[in-house]
Amino acid sequence: MSVGQGVERTGRFRTGCSCVGIDVHCHLVPARFPFPPGGGPVRGWPSMSPATDCHATVIIDEKPYRSVSDACWVAERRLEEMDRSGIAMQALSPMPELFGYWIEARAGCDLARYVNNVIASLVAEGEGRFVGLGGVPMQDIDLAIAELHRIVGELGFRGVEIGSNVNGVAIGDERFHPFFSEAEKLGAAVFVHAVRPAGMDRLVGPAPLQQILGYPSDVGFAAASVITGGLLQKLPRLRIAFSHGGGTFASLLPRLEQGYSVFPAVQDIMPEAPSLQARRLYVDSLVFDADMLRHLVAVFGEERVLLGTDYPFNFREKEPVARIEEAFADESLRERLTFANAQAFLALDEV
Amino acid sequence: MSVGQGVERTGRFRTGCSCVGIDVHCHLVPARFPFPPGGGPVRGWPSMSPATDCHATVIIDEKPYRSVSDACWVAERRLEEMDRSGIAMQALSPMPELFGYWIEARAGCDLARYVNNVIASLVAEGEGRFVGLGGVPMQDIDLAIAELHRIVGELGFRGVEIGSNVNGVAIGDERFHPFFSEAEKLGAAVFVHAVRPAGMDRLVGPAPLQQILGYPSDVGFAAASVITGGLLQKLPRLRIAFSHGGGTFASLLPRLEQGYSVFPAVQDIMPEAPSLQARRLYVDSLVFDADMLRHLVAVFGEERVLLGTDYPFNFREKEPVARIEEAFADESLRERLTFANAQAFLALDEV
Repeated sequence: MSVGQGVERTGRFRTGCSCVGIDVHCHLVPARFPFPPGGGPVRGWPSMSPATDCHATVIIDEKPYRSVSDACWVAERRLEEMDRSGIAMQALSPMPELFGYWIEARAGCDLARYVNNVIASLVAEGEGRFVGLGGVPMQDIDLAIAELHRIVGELGFRGVEIGSNVNGVAIGDERFHPFFSEAEKLGAAVFVHAVRPAGMDRLVGPAPLQQILGYPSDVGFAAASVITGGLLQKLPRLRIAFSHGGGTFASLLPRLEQGYSVFPAVQDIMPEAPSLQARRLYVDSLVFDADMLRHLVAVFGEERVLLGTDYPFNFREKEPVARIEEAFADESLRERLTFANAQAFLALDEV
Repeated sequence: MSVGQGVERTGRFRTGCSCVGIDVHCHLVPARFPFPPGGGPVRGWPSMSPATDCHATVIIDEKPYRSVSDACWVAERRLEEMDRSGIAMQALSPMPELFGYWIEARAGCDLARYVNNVIASLVAEGEGRFVGLGGVPMQDIDLAIAELHRIVGELGFRGVEIGSNVNGVAIGDERFHPFFSEAEKLGAAVFVHAVRPAGMDRLVGPAPLQQILGYPSDVGFAAASVITGGLLQKLPRLRIAFSHGGGTFASLLPRLEQGYSVFPAVQDIMPEAPSLQARRLYVDSLVFDADMLRHLVAVFGEERVLLGTDYPFNFREKEPVARIEEAFADESLRERLTFANAQAFLALDEV
């Protein structure tokens, strides 16, 4: 299958666009936020403060959280950049700070629903080049499951984005299994993204080290928790992907494998070796390094690595297709990483 | 230089021993501990409870911390295993929980001095096959510097072992620079080992996950803190090594490099790119995986990876020389990793 045939096969790309990439890791921020429910202030609820013509600042708890460009909410900006960088389709997910897991559950659910409705509007404007991965209030499993049903059943999203932890609890914890069970039943893809990471007290330097070092470390813990928590043994058809190449997980895996062979208590919780379980996960390609990208394919498998960019934030992969081509000469492998694996992860053939 | 010549050149290996490896990562536990100073109980102070003929249990705060074998304190046991696994020399360091950073500083210093004296006794018994890497009370920099002088000046140790963090503060923090400055002046090697790691609340499963997942993650943060804290720019002659192959640090590095190119605030704190700074660090070979071992050499350099085993604990590398030979065919590279790099790190040529 050539790249061109791949495009035709999916049948949903704008005529004349020679782009083929499917980006599973890119974010959306609404242009504005409603007032919080109840009239009074709600801790953690975001608002937007205009900065320049094309930028605005997300304000949380009266402090600037991040300055973002209008590519966060204007479809045309995104499509221009997608055409430039060879991306045929983006799976839109909330900027993780908008998960709002730390907000009281009913208000958090309101925020998630609002953001999801904005995602749905952008998908509608996107000429078939956007799909949705919505947010859900994981601080309340029942509300999270209800919103999961709404975004998949009513809004037609391909799945959800969730945090690497929910208020400090890694997502492999048993308390979240009912949610994943529902995602499996619905055939919803689950994209796990770093949020409010562990180890913040270990960072020596300025604020961006949270994203640079804290995020991949927390994703590493999250992926490990899914393995040690036995999630994919329980739910073998669940499609779950981890941001930032799975973070540090690939580097933790040989030690986890060795620990599994040494400690009976670790064997007891895992009927299948960690290195085999790892091949049931998806990870994105956002590692900024050809060597590491090759290592991810070796660890997780040729069908398990998905193109991801962190668009439209400044700290992103600007040439995702070229990065994959730099790492791999084999054409069919390039196609897998560029779009075919994402088609499977997002179940696009079933659309 | 052949392996045999390497042995002869150091001139300190037992006649007839064909072992050549130098193990920079192996631990000691004293057979017994004195009562804490002051007569009353001291929180965090260890004691020993005999278990079987050749095992005992370290008790901390009235709870069993770890069951250990007499190889922790009997020279002959160690020498037998060294002969079996091709290790000519061990650099003895305390089991990290014995750092006692969480103990009141004067009492913590007493504990460090006691453990260091036990290391010195074992070195004396070791027929030239042991050298010392002592512990120091990092919770009080002045006391730590005083004990550093004692172990290097009086006991003849090659350097120190310190934790990846001191009561939650990563060791790259500026408050520790005076200690490292003194280590550089004295020519003392610094071996950084994981202790009481970040992210414990992210682990889903039994207690050994602390060592399996928490340890390498905390070492990753520690190595990153040394880079972002600019330690080796200040102290270019400092010889500092990180346990467990530097933990997750090699996998964090490409993202740190990208963050360095994107965020001015990160550039401001680092006059030299992280990937260049990384080549000033040492890491041990304790990663249980040939692929990852090759990756460490690619990232840190051929002269920067040191044989390490975690002997005598059960969760260790039992065939360290074979692991290196599996990963590398080149004889001179094998020699570097097996012993020559450790000779440089420990400054054994200056003995």
